Amino acid sequence: MIGNSIFLVRDSLPKTPKPAANAAPAKNQDHKTTEQTSACRVALIGLGTVGRAVAKILWENGDASLRLTHICNRNIEKKKQSSGPNKFPSDVIWTDDVESVLNSDVDIVIELIGGLDPAGKIVRNALESGKSVVTANKQLIARHGPELLQLAGRKGCQIEFGASVAGGIPVLPALRTGLCGDRLHGIAGILNGTCNYILSRIENARIPFSEALEEAQARGYAEADASEDLDGGDARAKLAILALAGLHTQVEPESIRARTIRTVDAVDFDYAAELGCTIRQISRADLKDSTLFAEVGPCLVPTDSPFGRVQRNLNLVLTSGQYGGDMAFLGAGAGGDPTAVAVVSDLMFVAQSLSGSAGKKDAAGSASGTGISTPISTPKISSDFETPWYLRFFVRDQPGIVARLAQIMAAHHLNIDSLLQKPGFEKSSLPFVITLEPCHDSLLHPALQEMSGLEFSIRPCLCLPILR
Amino acid sequence: MIGNSIFLVRDSLPKTPKPAANAAPAKNQDHKTTEQTSACRVALIGLGTVGRAVAKILWENGDASLRLTHICNRNIEKKKQSSGPNKFPSDVIWTDDVESVLNSDVDIVIELIGGLDPAGKIVRNALESGKSVVTANKQLIARHGPELLQLAGRKGCQIEFGASVAGGIPVLPALRTGLCGDRLHGIAGILNGTCNYILSRIENARIPFSEALEEAQARGYAEADASEDLDGGDARAKLAILALAGLHTQVEPESIRARTIRTVDAVDFDYAAELGCTIRQISRADLKDSTLFAEVGPCLVPTDSPFGRVQRNLNLVLTSGQYGGDMAFLGAGAGGDPTAVAVVSDLMFVAQSLSGSAGKKDAAGSASGTGISTPISTPKISSDFETPWYLRFFVRDQPGIVARLAQIMAAHHLNIDSLLQKPGFEKSSLPFVITLEPCHDSLLHPALQEMSGLEFSIRPCLCLPILR
Repeated sequence: MIGNSIFLVRDSLPKTPKPAANAAPAKNQDHKTTEQTSACRVALIGLGTVGRAVAKILWENGDASLRLTHICNRNIEKKKQSSGPNKFPSDVIWTDDVESVLNSDVDIVIELIGGLDPAGKIVRNALESGKSVVTANKQLIARHGPELLQLAGRKGCQIEFGASVAGGIPVLPALRTGLCGDRLHGIAGILNGTCNYILSRIENARIPFSEALEEAQARGYAEADASEDLDGGDARAKLAILALAGLHTQVEPESIRARTIRTVDAVDFDYAAELGCTIRQISRADLKDSTLFAEVGPCLVPTDSPFGRVQRNLNLVLTSGQYGGDMAFLGAGAGGDPTAVAVVSDLMFVAQSLSGSAGKKDAAGSASGTGISTPISTPKISSDFETPWYLRFFVRDQPGIVARLAQIMAAHHLNIDSLLQKPGFEKSSLPFVITLEPCHDSLLHPALQEMSGLEFSIRPCLCLPILR
Repeated sequence: MIGNSIFLVRDSLPKTPKPAANAAPAKNQDHKTTEQTSACRVALIGLGTVGRAVAKILWENGDASLRLTHICNRNIEKKKQSSGPNKFPSDVIWTDDVESVLNSDVDIVIELIGGLDPAGKIVRNALESGKSVVTANKQLIARHGPELLQLAGRKGCQIEFGASVAGGIPVLPALRTGLCGDRLHGIAGILNGTCNYILSRIENARIPFSEALEEAQARGYAEADASEDLDGGDARAKLAILALAGLHTQVEPESIRARTIRTVDAVDFDYAAELGCTIRQISRADLKDSTLFAEVGPCLVPTDSPFGRVQRNLNLVLTSGQYGGDMAFLGAGAGGDPTAVAVVSDLMFVAQSLSGSAGKKDAAGSASGTGISTPISTPKISSDFETPWYLRFFVRDQPGIVARLAQIMAAHHLNIDSLLQKPGFEKSSLPFVITLEPCHDSLLHPALQEMSGLEFSIRPCLCLPILR
């Protein structure tokens, strides 16, 4: 799977040269101009960090198959000044009028605004008018991916979203082109760099959660309101997209249970270490029969496992297939340049497809991206994984605590695997851990509820799956 | 980069249904038949381990876009009996006549014979007759890839070879579709599972090389004549393909220096451990200006690095890009099923391309895989990497050895970084190690030659790069 196709990208020109409305000779000869008249015309909507990196790569690499013709953003004049207009083709049209872009003769619209609105409307309108779309918008694709794919299919154009998951790591392209011959049954990943930065900082420096969060914010790894990251909203949108692309299942992100990492304490890393583990935010989806087991949240993972070794804000994705076994993909999951690589790669792919299907599109009114035929299933969604469990209690010490807890567990048929209590803590706020042998979440849950009301408990029990 | 294209693979049917010569109702109703009349017709040449796995996946998954019509092998009747013919469509044609396959109406030929001859002839003839080719043949592609790609381009068909490197790990697809927007400057990998099995066995059990090799042979991880694996011939062919696909450089595999792993001794793992390292066969290519630095051979790598952690016969590939930074791909680099995933993924890709370009091909005589336009450079090839070095000597102990060696190093402007000598060895065969500060291979080489003639030396000095 590489073949001659790798070589043709840069001359994948549509068969019918388009009138190059903006290809007049540059007025300022200090500026380069995009002279190609038959290249794919590309509009960039959203000139933020990723947008600027996309423009930079297009500019520096001078790909003859792609011509940036429009840059669209709010307050465009200010953007133009602050962006250093010399870094862009001199004949590019700067505008804040999305409508004019959608009504122009561009072939591909890059949507980098993010969020559901107005991005969703822009993407729909672009597809409706037969323009292909490249987007990094995970929320939009996670919620409306299948619908937008169908729309693109009907209109004979394409929508690509390789940058929506794991930034520059080519997981989605690999699923599409290199693993499509397998039958995947599981995908798991560290999909949120903010959470991984925070958790690996707590791991390495044993600082409190709040301090690690502040540090992440100071370094630009976390936003002022980091709820989407910390509480799993970001990761479950990405998981829904991976499930769509790799497991061919349609999942509403909101139907995937997300547990926050805010409840993880530095002491949990001490206890995890006793178990040979560390803690990571893991997103996982397993397809078994017609149920998709899916969840996002902090988990114990062995320190020497691929997950346990992921430091800083890197991302890791593991896939499990019936034939190919397990594969791992590791790299920068965010950042302007890596994400822009995914966007530009998508652009090149769409340009190639448009070129390859030009004749066909004219004849039959549909490009190669038409139609959804691999059955997309809508399975039952469950978070009822069967795993061993880590339960961390904070209690006011008094006699009989363990006996009470053990009694409740026994009544719920839960088997205790180990009991860990590190010395050196105040009796008024004593953390200790019970680990359980593998059982279903649904069996554990009523026991947790019963334990939550105990008078010696001073914090809700933290309950984490242990992934071996 | 996933878009609607993931969904269309299974209905990517050529526009003009072909006469289904062999789609008559099955005579034996116990056998399934491939009823599709408009699917891509596929011939499988070479029914070994990978071939059988390819047939199995096609059979089990029942992809409507692909129809296995021919199986070709020597001693075909014997193969048919031993393969359990019930696992194949009852209307498949079993033959040992390659010519009849090439003269048939198949759309895609899968070449799984391996080696240069007759595989090269078969692939050329298939392409000449306008049939696309999917192959796992690393030697053929490493030597004749660019020429075969050009031939395919001229004939309007495709040649794909995703299975030729790293088995089921979708590195080549990722390079083609997800990283094409980056500008890669380096690729390094553990590309030979046999070497990795042997080296990690020596690492973990401290057994002699010969014992680890025998074990690998007994387990089927190494052939009786394992020279291609041990001496780097296999890995450098793969490296040449990665350099072609990722760095857009044409390299004769023979121009890549390959060092054998046969000279690595159990004691080297003891000394490597002192340096926080282990030993792996690493294939690496770095493009700097117009020189490709490339080499295959055993290297010291940090124990806690991605390379150092690769155990058993797994493969790992790292890519380094200007924009996306470093990416890692880990998985099963060999084996029937994983390699077959790569083959079937390629098949699906070609089927999709044939479908998408059907109109165009008729009109213009060329499918979407035409033409090589990304400039393929033919850079100067060098193995003159600048690294720190590990030099292991076996000597007959006598006074003044270190002084003599240090004198020679000083005369060649080599800076000694450390001297390691573990206790407990016989004085008649004493291993010790000198590490050198970073210097070019070319500076080190004359010193090594000078040292090779010293009277106390009882084995040639083992010289390994240290990769940090």
